[in-house]
Amino acid sequence: MMKYVYSFGEGKAEGDSKRKDLLGGKGAGLAEMTSLGLPVPPGFTISTEACTVFSQTRKMPAELGPAVDEALARLEKNVGMRFGDPSAPLLVSVRSGARASMPGMMDTILNLGLNEKTCEGLAKRTNNPRFALDAYRRFIAMYSDVALGVKRDNFEHALDEARARVAKAKGIDGTRLNGEELRRKVTDADITEDELRNVVVAFKKIVKEKTGKDFPEDPKEQLWGAIGAVFESWNNHRAIVYRRMHDIPDSWGTACNVQAMVFGNMGDTSATGVAFTRDPSTGERLLYGEWLPNAQGEDVVAGIRTPLPILAANVKPGHTDSLEQKMPEAFKTLVSIGQKLEKHFRDMQDLEFTIQDGKLYMLQCRNAKRTGKAAVRVAVEMVKEGLIDKEEAVLRVDPASLDQLLHPTLDPTAPKTLLAKGLSASPGAAQGKIVFSADEAEKRANAGEAVILVRVETSPEDIHGMKAARGILTARGGMTSHAAVVARGMGKPCVAGCSALAVNYQEQTVIVTQYDEGGRPQGSVTLKRGDVITIDGGAGHVYQGAVPTVNASLTGEFSELMAWADEARKMKVRANADTPLDARTARGFGAEGIGLCRTEHMFFDEERIRAMREMILADDVAAREKALAKILPHQRQDFVEIFREMKGFPVTIRLLDPPLHEFLPTEKAHIEELAKLMNVSVARLEQRIKDLHEFNPMLGHRGCRLAITYPEIYAMQVRAILEAAAAVTAEGNSVTPEIMIPLAMTREELVRMRQIVDKVSAEVSAKGTPVSFAFGTMIELPRAAVRANELAEVAEFFSFGTNDLTQCTMGLSRDDAGKFLPAYVEGGILPKDPFVSIDIDGVGSLVKVAVERGRATKSNIKLGVCGEHGGDPESVKFFHGAGLDYVSCSPFRVTIARLAAAQAEVAAKKGRAGSTTA
Amino acid sequence: MMKYVYSFGEGKAEGDSKRKDLLGGKGAGLAEMTSLGLPVPPGFTISTEACTVFSQTRKMPAELGPAVDEALARLEKNVGMRFGDPSAPLLVSVRSGARASMPGMMDTILNLGLNEKTCEGLAKRTNNPRFALDAYRRFIAMYSDVALGVKRDNFEHALDEARARVAKAKGIDGTRLNGEELRRKVTDADITEDELRNVVVAFKKIVKEKTGKDFPEDPKEQLWGAIGAVFESWNNHRAIVYRRMHDIPDSWGTACNVQAMVFGNMGDTSATGVAFTRDPSTGERLLYGEWLPNAQGEDVVAGIRTPLPILAANVKPGHTDSLEQKMPEAFKTLVSIGQKLEKHFRDMQDLEFTIQDGKLYMLQCRNAKRTGKAAVRVAVEMVKEGLIDKEEAVLRVDPASLDQLLHPTLDPTAPKTLLAKGLSASPGAAQGKIVFSADEAEKRANAGEAVILVRVETSPEDIHGMKAARGILTARGGMTSHAAVVARGMGKPCVAGCSALAVNYQEQTVIVTQYDEGGRPQGSVTLKRGDVITIDGGAGHVYQGAVPTVNASLTGEFSELMAWADEARKMKVRANADTPLDARTARGFGAEGIGLCRTEHMFFDEERIRAMREMILADDVAAREKALAKILPHQRQDFVEIFREMKGFPVTIRLLDPPLHEFLPTEKAHIEELAKLMNVSVARLEQRIKDLHEFNPMLGHRGCRLAITYPEIYAMQVRAILEAAAAVTAEGNSVTPEIMIPLAMTREELVRMRQIVDKVSAEVSAKGTPVSFAFGTMIELPRAAVRANELAEVAEFFSFGTNDLTQCTMGLSRDDAGKFLPAYVEGGILPKDPFVSIDIDGVGSLVKVAVERGRATKSNIKLGVCGEHGGDPESVKFFHGAGLDYVSCSPFRVTIARLAAAQAEVAAKKGRAGSTTA
Repeated sequence: MMKYVYSFGEGKAEGDSKRKDLLGGKGAGLAEMTSLGLPVPPGFTISTEACTVFSQTRKMPAELGPAVDEALARLEKNVGMRFGDPSAPLLVSVRSGARASMPGMMDTILNLGLNEKTCEGLAKRTNNPRFALDAYRRFIAMYSDVALGVKRDNFEHALDEARARVAKAKGIDGTRLNGEELRRKVTDADITEDELRNVVVAFKKIVKEKTGKDFPEDPKEQLWGAIGAVFESWNNHRAIVYRRMHDIPDSWGTACNVQAMVFGNMGDTSATGVAFTRDPSTGERLLYGEWLPNAQGEDVVAGIRTPLPILAANVKPGHTDSLEQKMPEAFKTLVSIGQKLEKHFRDMQDLEFTIQDGKLYMLQCRNAKRTGKAAVRVAVEMVKEGLIDKEEAVLRVDPASLDQLLHPTLDPTAPKTLLAKGLSASPGAAQGKIVFSADEAEKRANAGEAVILVRVETSPEDIHGMKAARGILTARGGMTSHAAVVARGMGKPCVAGCSALAVNYQEQTVIVTQYDEGGRPQGSVTLKRGDVITIDGGAGHVYQGAVPTVNASLTGEFSELMAWADEARKMKVRANADTPLDARTARGFGAEGIGLCRTEHMFFDEERIRAMREMILADDVAAREKALAKILPHQRQDFVEIFREMKGFPVTIRLLDPPLHEFLPTEKAHIEELAKLMNVSVARLEQRIKDLHEFNPMLGHRGCRLAITYPEIYAMQVRAILEAAAAVTAEGNSVTPEIMIPLAMTREELVRMRQIVDKVSAEVSAKGTPVSFAFGTMIELPRAAVRANELAEVAEFFSFGTNDLTQCTMGLSRDDAGKFLPAYVEGGILPKDPFVSIDIDGVGSLVKVAVERGRATKSNIKLGVCGEHGGDPESVKFFHGAGLDYVSCSPFRVTIARLAAAQAEVAAKKGRAGSTTA
Repeated sequence: MMKYVYSFGEGKAEGDSKRKDLLGGKGAGLAEMTSLGLPVPPGFTISTEACTVFSQTRKMPAELGPAVDEALARLEKNVGMRFGDPSAPLLVSVRSGARASMPGMMDTILNLGLNEKTCEGLAKRTNNPRFALDAYRRFIAMYSDVALGVKRDNFEHALDEARARVAKAKGIDGTRLNGEELRRKVTDADITEDELRNVVVAFKKIVKEKTGKDFPEDPKEQLWGAIGAVFESWNNHRAIVYRRMHDIPDSWGTACNVQAMVFGNMGDTSATGVAFTRDPSTGERLLYGEWLPNAQGEDVVAGIRTPLPILAANVKPGHTDSLEQKMPEAFKTLVSIGQKLEKHFRDMQDLEFTIQDGKLYMLQCRNAKRTGKAAVRVAVEMVKEGLIDKEEAVLRVDPASLDQLLHPTLDPTAPKTLLAKGLSASPGAAQGKIVFSADEAEKRANAGEAVILVRVETSPEDIHGMKAARGILTARGGMTSHAAVVARGMGKPCVAGCSALAVNYQEQTVIVTQYDEGGRPQGSVTLKRGDVITIDGGAGHVYQGAVPTVNASLTGEFSELMAWADEARKMKVRANADTPLDARTARGFGAEGIGLCRTEHMFFDEERIRAMREMILADDVAAREKALAKILPHQRQDFVEIFREMKGFPVTIRLLDPPLHEFLPTEKAHIEELAKLMNVSVARLEQRIKDLHEFNPMLGHRGCRLAITYPEIYAMQVRAILEAAAAVTAEGNSVTPEIMIPLAMTREELVRMRQIVDKVSAEVSAKGTPVSFAFGTMIELPRAAVRANELAEVAEFFSFGTNDLTQCTMGLSRDDAGKFLPAYVEGGILPKDPFVSIDIDGVGSLVKVAVERGRATKSNIKLGVCGEHGGDPESVKFFHGAGLDYVSCSPFRVTIARLAAAQAEVAAKKGRAGSTTA
């Protein structure tokens, strides 16, 4: 026979914390605490298996009835009270509890077991009729809400009427107050016993009206209604969407915990509270939390009374209202329980407790959520305390949380006015005056002003302005738009794709539409040049005015943890770096090479872009070569400096990738200016721009397609790379250049590219020291992935360009998807933004195909990834599993990638997932 | 020991026509003709295996020397002449001959074996010193060209000097003539014996100068040089590129044929010629061909003398210079040989022959190339003659050649001036006056003028003009651009992506740049509105003025062949049809349903586009639904008419696919007009257009993504479909609607779409007769292909949208690829334009994955293709092999697809490829 019910109490439990799959997180914690001999009110847990049967058959399993009866009988015996017995009425709480913490499900029903008779009995037994009536009316409202489908607001009015009568009795004219004011003037505690009696009658009448049935008097009926509500809540819409987003299988189900009530609201010797075994903000090892005397957990949530600190050290000056001071015995017990649980679970705990008549009861324990900073400190200190080993410590910190440590963040205590939400394109917070052009950003920044560059979108022409600004805000573009990629590369805060903004360059204003919760527009705010705003790139928020920020500060613990991570890690981490400065930054963050050096950004310097434009406007090969020759020395010098910075670490240089039209101006005035400068007619220049126009530039004449048409461009770049390598080698330095071909689609393209490279290489070698280099390709088209076996015949390495691979595989333009992708993610159609975290099922499966086929041809082919996904922890785990040799990401994400790669390694070794506590 | 040499002669041959792999096409034909007892000059074939050894080792196989010696000895004995023997000099021809006919390789060396002594011997033996010297000088030039690397033009000058001396002797001042004129005044026949002697001396001197060595005197040395040149030519660049384009493996190699010379130039009883056993233009069963008395094959090629007809019926009035009349005996022999060969090979033959001193010799036979018209007639007549069966007949016609039968073509005899080349976007020829706007096209066409619509590119707004025009010419866009797709749908000639055109709408002119063969611009021609041009959509050519055309005419044989094809065929053929007229046309071509009914074109009628624009500009769901309600009755009526036309055949309707901005104007004037009409401000309209702008619309907010955002659009369309189906069912007709979702990426999208459909379906059913329908999806994103197993959980059918699948898989925008794709195909980087013929290795492999995974989930899922590839014979074969249930293509290609599908079936059954003779 299936066992569906697991009792706990009297120091014994049928379950334990290893059976979270059966008991859920809460049930497992209660069982474990009971077994440890901690004071836990007894009860029983109905397993997730019962929920699964219920979901599938819409019926409770047959064996469940007798099992619950038996567990209930045991519970009654244990506490010496009985369901429905007025002389010693057993009251219970009923709570859901799934394997993973999951919002959206039914939470808690308290005081179950109350009816007319037991309420009276409770009044007598506690000698406190007001307490009993208050518990009863709370129970009716709570139960009706979750089990009978009568929503809470139905009851508010009846309660407010009672309040009004109380107010009148006090001489206050309640009719002139709105609900909120009334509730402040007449608190729950002010409602008299008689009025509570009226409220109970009124509540029951409401239930009768709404459901056509009387509120159940039979405690057993109440209990089954509650259990059914818990199981039903597993399949409500919010819960399903949440599961889909977090990859929680529907088959897990939720457990249901039934536990004898203890009361924190039985007078001044009673209390309720929550505590952490360490400070969840800082990680400091001391009991941290809040409590309320004479209260139930519900009161803390309702927020009407302000909770008090648990530690004496944290009380306001002149106060002595900490738990430590008011109930020193209970406090001491709580501290010792916390320590015991930490030792037992080898992790920081989040505790819920109730004190009834001076006796402390534990209601919940679980691994505590914590800030990135706390996670690092706790993990490192626990290693020193001997609780965990170094590898375990590495698993304990969510790599994504390192963003908080590495970037300035908004002061959490500061007041702020949210203006708009966009995409969290690059973390960090910044304030400044709004400017609408890169030139003005630079000018004002040079004059010492802090500015935020606000654009519809950014383009390579804006880079100097992005450098100068404190932060970047765009109305368009997704997580891999130009603004987002460049900002992350610079480690600069950026909110992108903020669609509420209407930027007007002419009038130098931005109109911010305000939306209500349903997404309907509710008026707008107009900001003008010079107005101050604050952006939080980590959250994607835009605030009015200057919100104070807190600077990042890295601790010794952080370095220690990262050292352990590097010890554990096997997959290499490189950085995407286009300049010597980027390269130096990357090395500072521990990058083991450059995985992507984009050469196009190098062409935007004034002198170079002119030559570039000459090249684009040239009519024949000779003229193109002449223009390219002007760029060569600059390009060579770029590489010389990058090679020097990288001191022999590999440097993967991608040859020119974007379509040529990106190098030509689009605005009339700029075109006229350029025509004059180039000494060509405006008409001719316009014609060339028109000729180069593309409907879908993403799928256009770019990447190595450019070099099929104009081989001389790549020839110049290869020459610059190899001459630079020769020069730096001659200085006595080691150099490891890797020449990378973008957008390859066929083997034959790579053959042609290799011919260009070999020809130049022979010419450079003939002039001096031969330089060794590797020749490889991006895998960024689905075709390249499926034909990887052929490409590997020519390429010595593959680098997965997962941005473009995502665009092509999913048919999603990263610059346009901002209009509908958020709805996809919010609506659960996609689990995550696929430009942030790799689409494992789709794009990922092509990555795996390419790895397999590439290695089939060339078993030692070097494999890496250089898309933005290289800095996303989930994606890094996937790449580790797919067997890549390295990931490459923006310098400011290298630390995150190092930790994620280490976790992937440790988790694979230990056979479980990383960052379990985050 | 390997056998490398296969002799033939005296009625016996070591090889036969089944060993084309060993002997090449030419060698196999010679062997077979010899075995049949036909008069073939004896000789031997060196097998392709020898070539393969030579390619791999750069050396002739060791066994080859003795084998050639032996074969040569046999040949000498056979003809009673010997290599290098002045008294009876053996002369041979040496020709390459691969398994498949392959341009680019070395072709022929004639008269090998001549040297100082044998030349004299030949002069004596033939009593014709002039003949011997002429043969010698030709041999020197030919041999030097192909075996010694001294190109032909090196010798032209020496020959011209001899001509000049002859001219002078005739009293003509040769110094005032250019080369061309000189060669016309002094033909080869005019060069005297003495001058030929001088020419031989001069030629040898040139060889010495260029190579540093004497021209080889030893016939054996000559022979080995020629064999080496044949084998070398297998690996020259042109041959390699050709092989790559036609999927011919490098490993096949070429054979080398050495054959005793016969001379057609030994006087008036000698001749040379080529003949077909049936008329290659019409298929009529009579010997058709050309001959030249007293000539070698080379003379026919050189084009200086005009060949004469073989049949008496074909001579010019008053002439009697046919072979039939001049050499009736030889003619009779040729006719009987032709018949014998036809019977033997069971196919129409292409013959080369030489008559020496009245005796006919066969030099080559092979299956003849023929026009589509001839192919059909020959295939059908051969079935009636009992030569082949019906299935064989089906294999005998190249489906692509049917285009010639179905569309008007240019009169091949008419003079024409080529202006420019573009893509052959839609077959057929048409002439007309140039117009630059759809409105003008319509106006002039209504006035009875023939017009060609010339646009940079077309958009849905131009459809009325495209309907009105005789043909369409665009400067931009590929084989699946709007212009190409719509023109093919209309069966209208179209040349697209003609990049030599610079269209200027303001000035109403088009400047056509002229290019030389190297692709360098060579001036331009300016055409203006009203100028007449002719386009040949089948070839992609644009001609100046009106070139006469020949109308299509379908024969009874054609219907007969198609009936046999339909008998043999298993895969269904549907049509892409958007209107009732299209549907009727499709049925006329034998379509078995509609595979793709695009609904967007339906929105461009004046009344509807207004409602559509109202919908796009609406602020909320209610306003959108109000606008959509205006479109509903029209849309329903469209479907009613289409369902009626299709009489129960399945109709697959794709819900709205393009991004909404395609329905808004782009030009300022149109925007202002629309703003007025819509009663909104120009600024507001411009803002909305700006909001909707996309960088890569191909990867943007389109397909079912629109319905995720605006479910009401699809709800309206589904309602129109189901209400129409109910109405037509009520008329007593059978209706089979298939609702197709575009651009699906995830299972979840399909679930949402299915919800919309089910809701509307329930509402429609509630009002009357329930209508059954199928629900399915396009597979057009790589992600959809790899996740087909999941999509099949929701979809009842898949239709491969191979246009978009190609775009995404290869990262190629069909609208932009015109700039570089031709270079890819010409340069052999891609075998074919992947928008014309499916990229089997890349896109095709994703199709296969999707078929496999879709069927794994739902074994009976219906699978089809509705991309433009559905009408391409090669692609149809692939789809047949991949196991699809049907293909769908534009109505005018349905016939081609029917034949291709039948061939795929027959070929699979017979275990060989179709259309072998084409």
